[in-house]
Amino acid sequence: MTAHPKQTPPAEAVSAFAALHHAEEPLLLPNAWDHASARFLAGQGFQAIGTTSLGVAAAAGLPDGGAATREETLRLAVALGSEAFLLSVDAEGGFGDDPDEVAEFSRELHAAGAVGINLEDGLGPVDRHAAKIAAVKQAAPGLFVNARTDTHWRSDGDGTLARLDAYRQAGADGVFVPGLTDLRRIATLVRHLDVPLNVLYSPGGPTVAHLADAGARRISLGSLLYRRALGAALEAVADVRAGRTPQGVTPSYDDVAGLTKHP
Amino acid sequence: MTAHPKQTPPAEAVSAFAALHHAEEPLLLPNAWDHASARFLAGQGFQAIGTTSLGVAAAAGLPDGGAATREETLRLAVALGSEAFLLSVDAEGGFGDDPDEVAEFSRELHAAGAVGINLEDGLGPVDRHAAKIAAVKQAAPGLFVNARTDTHWRSDGDGTLARLDAYRQAGADGVFVPGLTDLRRIATLVRHLDVPLNVLYSPGGPTVAHLADAGARRISLGSLLYRRALGAALEAVADVRAGRTPQGVTPSYDDVAGLTKHP
Repeated sequence: MTAHPKQTPPAEAVSAFAALHHAEEPLLLPNAWDHASARFLAGQGFQAIGTTSLGVAAAAGLPDGGAATREETLRLAVALGSEAFLLSVDAEGGFGDDPDEVAEFSRELHAAGAVGINLEDGLGPVDRHAAKIAAVKQAAPGLFVNARTDTHWRSDGDGTLARLDAYRQAGADGVFVPGLTDLRRIATLVRHLDVPLNVLYSPGGPTVAHLADAGARRISLGSLLYRRALGAALEAVADVRAGRTPQGVTPSYDDVAGLTKHP
Repeated sequence: MTAHPKQTPPAEAVSAFAALHHAEEPLLLPNAWDHASARFLAGQGFQAIGTTSLGVAAAAGLPDGGAATREETLRLAVALGSEAFLLSVDAEGGFGDDPDEVAEFSRELHAAGAVGINLEDGLGPVDRHAAKIAAVKQAAPGLFVNARTDTHWRSDGDGTLARLDAYRQAGADGVFVPGLTDLRRIATLVRHLDVPLNVLYSPGGPTVAHLADAGARRISLGSLLYRRALGAALEAVADVRAGRTPQGVTPSYDDVAGLTKHP
């Protein structure tokens, strides 16, 4: 297995990540919260791994979406950037309002080995988010910028297309609308877009196959795996407490200890 | 809920932790790997939370037991030290061979708010481990020192009692023998000890109730919860991939986002 060098990834890696958005099947992107979870997920055959800002924030005891985890996010990117998978980093709103600061951060992520970045608008000013995207594309042209709007995540969906158009014009390589699960609205949006649409998988909502049929080109799991991991730990401790043997897949000590990072 | 101040814990907290080793039921100590898992476990009614060196190491992509995670271990202790639970830190062998260095590290952990520390001998020289324990007790007398021997974890159990005696004489407040699951051997060991015996729960081995009957006063989960968490993430992503809805306890976004650290 060849690892990417711990430096700005080669153009092939960036192109490979972009190509995953245009393959026969949409890109199913599992989101890791630490080094072992990323390595473990990659071992299941996922060529690309995302990170989850909630997981990174909660692991450190910090708020998500509050620009509090710049350091933790970069640290994880550095730990993962030399691994043999394509890394896309969930960077909240870029950890600042100043497009130059966001551009500098994206340059650091790219230098660490990331091939993609997610930038969310938090429903703030469209122009500001567009300016961040433009600044990132200038600072790190090779980084796949996935521009997220929170119109469905935090609101009723109004203004989605206008925001996505502005982000696309600013240079976004893809767009992300978490909270959008209605298959007809997804299909309508896809018809209006000339970049890949990323949606968030929601348990109980449409399956990956249905989302793919509607035209989604990338399907993220967001914080789901981290939240399920926490839930499984609670289940296991409740079992032990009650005298029951914990159930479910549990990798051995050696399996986990073997997931150290590429030197 | 009153949080301990982020400074050397008050004597009451230290005594409270020691007292949990002498209560009617043994101390069942779940081991967390990050801030959210610790807070989440504490929310299940556990007064004391341990950390897992494997989890801390794997999260950072570093080897466990190789003295590589001093910084990560301290960072987690700092994040957890002001929370409203009693914190015991798994510190491998103390991240150094020099007793003074180990003592300084234990002082830092105690200053961060930890009330307990685990120190493992890795089957190294008995005198060296005893010297570490003595140095730690001198530097941070209030810290509950749980002295671990790896005679059962890494070998066939030979020499266990001699090692534990030496560590006890050096000042250990409790002793830990992971890998020891034979109830008769546990009972025999307990008869020879005048400090609480800690054992590691092993799925499929004796239940907590059986370990308690044999005389164990503290039962740790070690890396089990972290390993199960990783396994559950794999199960969930496999379900999503196959078009199935992931099963099991899954806290909501808001539940996890609310676990930020005590300011």
